[in-house]
Amino acid sequence: MTGHSRRRTRGRSAPELAIGTYARLDRGRGARIGVPEVVLGEGKTVAHLTGIVRGLARAGHGALISRPTEAQRAALRRLAQQGLPLRSLADGRLFRLEGPLGVAYRPGVVALVTAGTSDVPLAREAEALLGELGLRVATAYDVGVAGLHRLQRAVRRLEARRPEIYLAFAGREGALPTVLAGLVRAPVVGVPTAVGYGRGGRGEAALAAMLQSCAPIAVVNIDAAVPAALFAAQRFARR
Amino acid sequence: MTGHSRRRTRGRSAPELAIGTYARLDRGRGARIGVPEVVLGEGKTVAHLTGIVRGLARAGHGALISRPTEAQRAALRRLAQQGLPLRSLADGRLFRLEGPLGVAYRPGVVALVTAGTSDVPLAREAEALLGELGLRVATAYDVGVAGLHRLQRAVRRLEARRPEIYLAFAGREGALPTVLAGLVRAPVVGVPTAVGYGRGGRGEAALAAMLQSCAPIAVVNIDAAVPAALFAAQRFARR
Amino acid sequence: MTGHSRRRTRGRSAPELAIGTYARLDRGRGARIGVPEVVLGEGKTVAHLTGIVRGLARAGHGALISRPTEAQRAALRRLAQQGLPLRSLADGRLFRLEGPLGVAYRPGVVALVTAGTSDVPLAREAEALLGELGLRVATAYDVGVAGLHRLQRAVRRLEARRPEIYLAFAGREGALPTVLAGLVRAPVVGVPTAVGYGRGGRGEAALAAMLQSCAPIAVVNIDAAVPAALFAAQRFARR
Amino acid sequence: MTGHSRRRTRGRSAPELAIGTYARLDRGRGARIGVPEVVLGEGKTVAHLTGIVRGLARAGHGALISRPTEAQRAALRRLAQQGLPLRSLADGRLFRLEGPLGVAYRPGVVALVTAGTSDVPLAREAEALLGELGLRVATAYDVGVAGLHRLQRAVRRLEARRPEIYLAFAGREGALPTVLAGLVRAPVVGVPTAVGYGRGGRGEAALAAMLQSCAPIAVVNIDAAVPAALFAAQRFARR
Amino acid sequence: MTGHSRRRTRGRSAPELAIGTYARLDRGRGARIGVPEVVLGEGKTVAHLTGIVRGLARAGHGALISRPTEAQRAALRRLAQQGLPLRSLADGRLFRLEGPLGVAYRPGVVALVTAGTSDVPLAREAEALLGELGLRVATAYDVGVAGLHRLQRAVRRLEARRPEIYLAFAGREGALPTVLAGLVRAPVVGVPTAVGYGRGGRGEAALAAMLQSCAPIAVVNIDAAVPAALFAAQRFARR
Amino acid sequence: MTGHSRRRTRGRSAPELAIGTYARLDRGRGARIGVPEVVLGEGKTVAHLTGIVRGLARAGHGALISRPTEAQRAALRRLAQQGLPLRSLADGRLFRLEGPLGVAYRPGVVALVTAGTSDVPLAREAEALLGELGLRVATAYDVGVAGLHRLQRAVRRLEARRPEIYLAFAGREGALPTVLAGLVRAPVVGVPTAVGYGRGGRGEAALAAMLQSCAPIAVVNIDAAVPAALFAAQRFARR
Amino acid sequence: MTGHSRRRTRGRSAPELAIGTYARLDRGRGARIGVPEVVLGEGKTVAHLTGIVRGLARAGHGALISRPTEAQRAALRRLAQQGLPLRSLADGRLFRLEGPLGVAYRPGVVALVTAGTSDVPLAREAEALLGELGLRVATAYDVGVAGLHRLQRAVRRLEARRPEIYLAFAGREGALPTVLAGLVRAPVVGVPTAVGYGRGGRGEAALAAMLQSCAPIAVVNIDAAVPAALFAAQRFARR
Amino acid sequence: MTGHSRRRTRGRSAPELAIGTYARLDRGRGARIGVPEVVLGEGKTVAHLTGIVRGLARAGHGALISRPTEAQRAALRRLAQQGLPLRSLADGRLFRLEGPLGVAYRPGVVALVTAGTSDVPLAREAEALLGELGLRVATAYDVGVAGLHRLQRAVRRLEARRPEIYLAFAGREGALPTVLAGLVRAPVVGVPTAVGYGRGGRGEAALAAMLQSCAPIAVVNIDAAVPAALFAAQRFARR
Repeated sequence: MTGHSRRRTRGRSAPELAIGTYARLDRGRGARIGVPEVVLGEGKTVAHLTGIVRGLARAGHGALISRPTEAQRAALRRLAQQGLPLRSLADGRLFRLEGPLGVAYRPGVVALVTAGTSDVPLAREAEALLGELGLRVATAYDVGVAGLHRLQRAVRRLEARRPEIYLAFAGREGALPTVLAGLVRAPVVGVPTAVGYGRGGRGEAALAAMLQSCAPIAVVNIDAAVPAALFAAQRFARR
Repeated sequence: MTGHSRRRTRGRSAPELAIGTYARLDRGRGARIGVPEVVLGEGKTVAHLTGIVRGLARAGHGALISRPTEAQRAALRRLAQQGLPLRSLADGRLFRLEGPLGVAYRPGVVALVTAGTSDVPLAREAEALLGELGLRVATAYDVGVAGLHRLQRAVRRLEARRPEIYLAFAGREGALPTVLAGLVRAPVVGVPTAVGYGRGGRGEAALAAMLQSCAPIAVVNIDAAVPAALFAAQRFARR
Repeated sequence: MTGHSRRRTRGRSAPELAIGTYARLDRGRGARIGVPEVVLGEGKTVAHLTGIVRGLARAGHGALISRPTEAQRAALRRLAQQGLPLRSLADGRLFRLEGPLGVAYRPGVVALVTAGTSDVPLAREAEALLGELGLRVATAYDVGVAGLHRLQRAVRRLEARRPEIYLAFAGREGALPTVLAGLVRAPVVGVPTAVGYGRGGRGEAALAAMLQSCAPIAVVNIDAAVPAALFAAQRFARR
Repeated sequence: MTGHSRRRTRGRSAPELAIGTYARLDRGRGARIGVPEVVLGEGKTVAHLTGIVRGLARAGHGALISRPTEAQRAALRRLAQQGLPLRSLADGRLFRLEGPLGVAYRPGVVALVTAGTSDVPLAREAEALLGELGLRVATAYDVGVAGLHRLQRAVRRLEARRPEIYLAFAGREGALPTVLAGLVRAPVVGVPTAVGYGRGGRGEAALAAMLQSCAPIAVVNIDAAVPAALFAAQRFARR
Repeated sequence: MTGHSRRRTRGRSAPELAIGTYARLDRGRGARIGVPEVVLGEGKTVAHLTGIVRGLARAGHGALISRPTEAQRAALRRLAQQGLPLRSLADGRLFRLEGPLGVAYRPGVVALVTAGTSDVPLAREAEALLGELGLRVATAYDVGVAGLHRLQRAVRRLEARRPEIYLAFAGREGALPTVLAGLVRAPVVGVPTAVGYGRGGRGEAALAAMLQSCAPIAVVNIDAAVPAALFAAQRFARR
Repeated sequence: MTGHSRRRTRGRSAPELAIGTYARLDRGRGARIGVPEVVLGEGKTVAHLTGIVRGLARAGHGALISRPTEAQRAALRRLAQQGLPLRSLADGRLFRLEGPLGVAYRPGVVALVTAGTSDVPLAREAEALLGELGLRVATAYDVGVAGLHRLQRAVRRLEARRPEIYLAFAGREGALPTVLAGLVRAPVVGVPTAVGYGRGGRGEAALAAMLQSCAPIAVVNIDAAVPAALFAAQRFARR
Repeated sequence: MTGHSRRRTRGRSAPELAIGTYARLDRGRGARIGVPEVVLGEGKTVAHLTGIVRGLARAGHGALISRPTEAQRAALRRLAQQGLPLRSLADGRLFRLEGPLGVAYRPGVVALVTAGTSDVPLAREAEALLGELGLRVATAYDVGVAGLHRLQRAVRRLEARRPEIYLAFAGREGALPTVLAGLVRAPVVGVPTAVGYGRGGRGEAALAAMLQSCAPIAVVNIDAAVPAALFAAQRFARR
Repeated sequence: MTGHSRRRTRGRSAPELAIGTYARLDRGRGARIGVPEVVLGEGKTVAHLTGIVRGLARAGHGALISRPTEAQRAALRRLAQQGLPLRSLADGRLFRLEGPLGVAYRPGVVALVTAGTSDVPLAREAEALLGELGLRVATAYDVGVAGLHRLQRAVRRLEARRPEIYLAFAGREGALPTVLAGLVRAPVVGVPTAVGYGRGGRGEAALAAMLQSCAPIAVVNIDAAVPAALFAAQRFARR
């Protein structure tokens, strides 16, 4: 369930880092697949999460912690006060453990677009993560399809930055990635967001609509901003 | 399950028309609610459907028959050959039994728009039904959201006809009614169509997306072209 | 995701109003599509929502805020105490920011009907919104189909007001719009409500039943009182 | 999966009748629970079904066969031609193997009501089964809720027969049992039918609506006309 | 949504009792359909519920209040302290407003059976309601199918009471009503309960299993103890 | 997707057998995991399936072919006529390619039980497969829970064979494995079968009920007779 | 719903232990089916649960209590303080009431494997339960399929312990049991865990994936660690 | 619904090509978004599809036709016999209309991997399409996760080709893309295939598992081989 990474020369050192009996970090992941260690908070006990973070810090690894719960966030802040090199990003939706991430990317631009204001906090997660990886982002938020002129103007501005990939965040009817993909030349990845009520709410309609898109887009799961950002980043991974 | 109608001066004659023990037609429906008799074919036995049509013809009622199955279509054609005043419309997706429908409408225009070519046969059902009711239609087909310029040009052309209501047919991601509703001043009714494969296919994603629309549209069920046309027509019913 | 509107003579002034980097209001929406700015509260952070409201107020726009969460409601009340022209409607389920809404309607009556007492708070949202738009409403609440005489009497009373459209709110089995549509001449829009427990509860059975209605009704999503009211209002929009 | 029955004095003879290695009929079921042997056709191989019917005939049991497939129907007709005492009922939707059913009922009336014409073939299954059991039925078909006067007149006629239980068949929005239960004094059992297309079609909306009914009805599964008739019959079983 | 009843000689007095603009009680329901007024708490605002109870008390009606929320329960207790004739039943899962219920039943026994201990609180709701209606109950709780001897012994004890109908409560795999129906002569109504976790939990598997039962049982919705009890009671209603 | 196996001394010979570019058989599977090669027919083109079978035969492997479609069955019969050592089992629901399967089991008994006659063809698949593997089976078919005495007698007979594991096949409400697991000492694996109509039909209710069982059973997917038999067989695999 | 057990010589003493009117414990279960009494906490009232525990203690039975809620946990701790022989296991996710469990097992090893750290608390429930039954466990946690080398090393270590059955815990995509079953010779039971967000989250995707496994595994319900452990234990039950 | 493209110098000629009233091809799509015209067959009438193909041919456009139905395939073959430059690809699952596609790509390699033999026909669609676009493919088929060594060997072979993106096709449990993404450095797109029976069959489990993947993959809809190939190709589009 956890992601793991570390800069290492191939083959050197033990390939895993055992933490208690409950975690086994994959030290070679960054070098092997070009994606840093991202520890998913949600679902782990606070004790397990803090144990993992301490273990990584002790071993000198850098990492990111995604989707922390309220209790985990408090525990991570306590660890930071105790001197662990932890920073809160994107209003506490992401944490960064300082240290090498074991990945290297060529320069490039990722465009982030949201349909509404409600999708912005998720886009900020992607923005923060891509920033930590040294990639540049170009953003246009609240440019949904009910007012096309907003979108068309935003597209002109973004295209000037020459992004190599677009992440399009949308909840409710999830039409943005489809409309966007009819306007731009770079691949578009749809990120459905858990916005909306009633039938198809919580991102279900958006996900289904993106899967049914008449444009050739790919998608990630509902609210999966971090996986989307990693998928985008992998494009820039140096071999 | 069946709809029934007949022109009658209010209160005159028996309010229902019994056909065998299996059908009871509501003779006052047209005058009461402004919607003609439409008999749904699908789901009925061929014997029941032809019995109803014969009964209506004998009583001098006009009616429409929607969604006939292949077997029902053949049976209706045989009835026509035997002299019943039955006409096939929209490539046999609708049949018209000649005779008074018991409804009266003021003049008006309904705009019909489809996202793709696959939605056209359903739109033709609505087109034919509205034509039988004496209403005018303005159409723009295959103007989906992956190529916005097509849609924007179509909207300009349709708006010149000053439609009072739009029916927007779309399958797959079902984005057309939402985008359209951001461009026009008349109410938009979304008609999801059973187009698309995989998850959310057969109109499920389109329906969910239309229910989640960030524009104030109303919807009908998947492939419900005839109910949508009747809902639109009711707006023009004379009191 | 947000709706936006503003009175403007066509083409005058910048077409959007940017608020921070997270919101871009569509200033021409009211004039273009005949629907006022309604900002959906639920799903936005409190900071984003109050930022949008302040931005609209500063720019002299009027608007409505729908489905505020408890925390948003408290924040809106604080803004009102600080002098922003904000009023709570329908027991705080809707807020009105004073100022021009950019829309104009001809006079007309919308009928609102509920199946039960539990549906009344939602109907009150529609009632309040239509009132702010200057439209008249005729209401009959708790007239569900388990006691037909209640409904039949209510219909006689409402028809005397000559409504041009009906909004019928029902949870549980959602039969009201179907029965109502067999009794009245104006179009009926079903609004399923999240009432009921067990299978099909939270409005799911009501929505499905309305989509399957043997009468030609249109529907909106579960609890979508505000979109239903806007759809009804659009009928009266002056061109 | 099969139902089984046979007249026997309590405790006498072997309690089961083995047929090949694939069927074991419960000879005491009729006497024990007041319900006759009904063999469900659908799902069995033709060889198994005909084996069971031959075995029952050889042992002198009577039985009913429900939901035969097209191939099973042909096989049963061949058995009848070979002299087995088999009769087709309800247009071949039910077969009767002559012989004692092992059940005894006091006299009584069951009312059968359908919303539409499409529901009639299912109601005929119940009608035929109840007839074989010696119970009386009162019927009113195609009296759905879109034309209330039809239903109200039908109820008056049926109530004059003093039925002790109602079976109400409805597809699509499934509102009939709810409305009916607000009008009559006997218990109402809803039988959803697989009528309708799009979302909630094939009886799904009808079933959900009946489960959500605001009237105290009970329900059976979609198209379960025979189980509904047996449930009704059990009320009249002599102890 | 609400149920309503009152003892009245047929035709006497106004047929409905309006309470504010939000409730309209059906005064003739008890006499018409043989079921008392049961007001569903859940889903109503506290103000609406207490308004209805006060209105009924003022008009001299008796009633039951089902599924009160925690806040409603507190409000009902306050009303009782203020002198309204309200009693809490079944650990506060049901309340009784004293006064005539407008229904009359012949004597009879209803058997209540639960599969587990977790189903007992729901069975107690039915027990209390049937007691208020003057019917007798015979109970056997925690006699699920994983230990058949428990069930077989319980059945012998219950059958000695000669119940005319069984209500069988079961969550999880919901097998109890099916097994029970193979053992007893009276009709069995399954009441799925929201017991169980994981897939099919919250009563979904139990409901589906009961609908699929190979025995001829009828079912009500998940946790619908009160509708089940009313359905059972109706059997004993005097005409 | 395919399973693959072959007798080999560990490490000897190439670990995979490539057939065209479309199949790569895992030659060490039998020795490694104690399960023979079973090629799933359904889903493959006829050309691919016959190619795989020819390839296996040419390489001297034995195998089983499960769930062949009608067209595949015909093609396999043609291969047999051409001299390939192929035998049809269980009425053509399974085929055996003669040759070593690469597995070895200690002696033991598997008990197979079905709720109804409709489940027997699936149980026969398991019976045939276990027979090919040299394991013994004890069977009791059509002993469902609506007649407990049948089941109790069958259990006594089966227990005398001292089975080490039970496979319990049931469709519809799927109660058999739960009731059985309360009676026997060996582990019970539930095999839901696609028997039943309406909601929860096609095995969905049976699967959910087995997952919710209040007895500690394990389950396989709907109609997964072959995987269930392999799971049972693995218990007897020699190390 | 509850499980029940007790050591007894066959046939001796009353077969059930009644506690109030709400629980009836099956005293012979352990001896009959080889599984101890495990009382499911969740779903029971606190009063019922403590009543059952007191009743068992008074009768001298041992038992386990699974899935206690927070309130039940507090109540059980109070009972322990009052002197009942209750111990908390697995961080309070399981409680042990001291006393004979009525079961006896031959020695053996069960392997427990988890895909991630989030699955560990569930695996600990199984670990604790198997320990109470006197069985040995071999564990490897956080060895999911995104880093195969971790899994391959863990398998070598576990196989050295010669486990007779594997329980593989995995949430999210649930691939672990499938991959594991391709590597080991003992049967694998998949335990999907409620880990993951968005579509397929809360264990739904993991369960579906395990049911669809191309390896012959069996599964239990989401989070059903205790049923999985009992299923595994039954393999070692002495007859 | 249809995709459309054509080589054109920017701004030259009319932007759409109208065919009858039912199709409007987007002539600038290829140049604008780097994706050729692909006409989806399935869902269109034969007359509409052949009309579109003739129209494109007449206008000198090249195109691809995907997912033709059996009837459409026959019609396309007749058109080819009449001289239209149409070629069948991938066993008739794709057709190529000769002529310029309006797109240009830099050289590059796409890796195609399937879990089983059943997934191969879909992978062949992608193979054929990428070939028509001038891109190179590296393939490894039937390398699913139940035999890891097959996959690990395949990965080594593919990596030597230095693919920039992987398309991983898998049905049933859909684990392949997740395991693959833990082994390779290029981004992985999962393509769930409609392989498998029972719950989660027809690709539903595979899709859910891919969305839940603990590796950062993106996905397309079930069987969406062509959209996946277009998404991959877009990466190589020249600006």
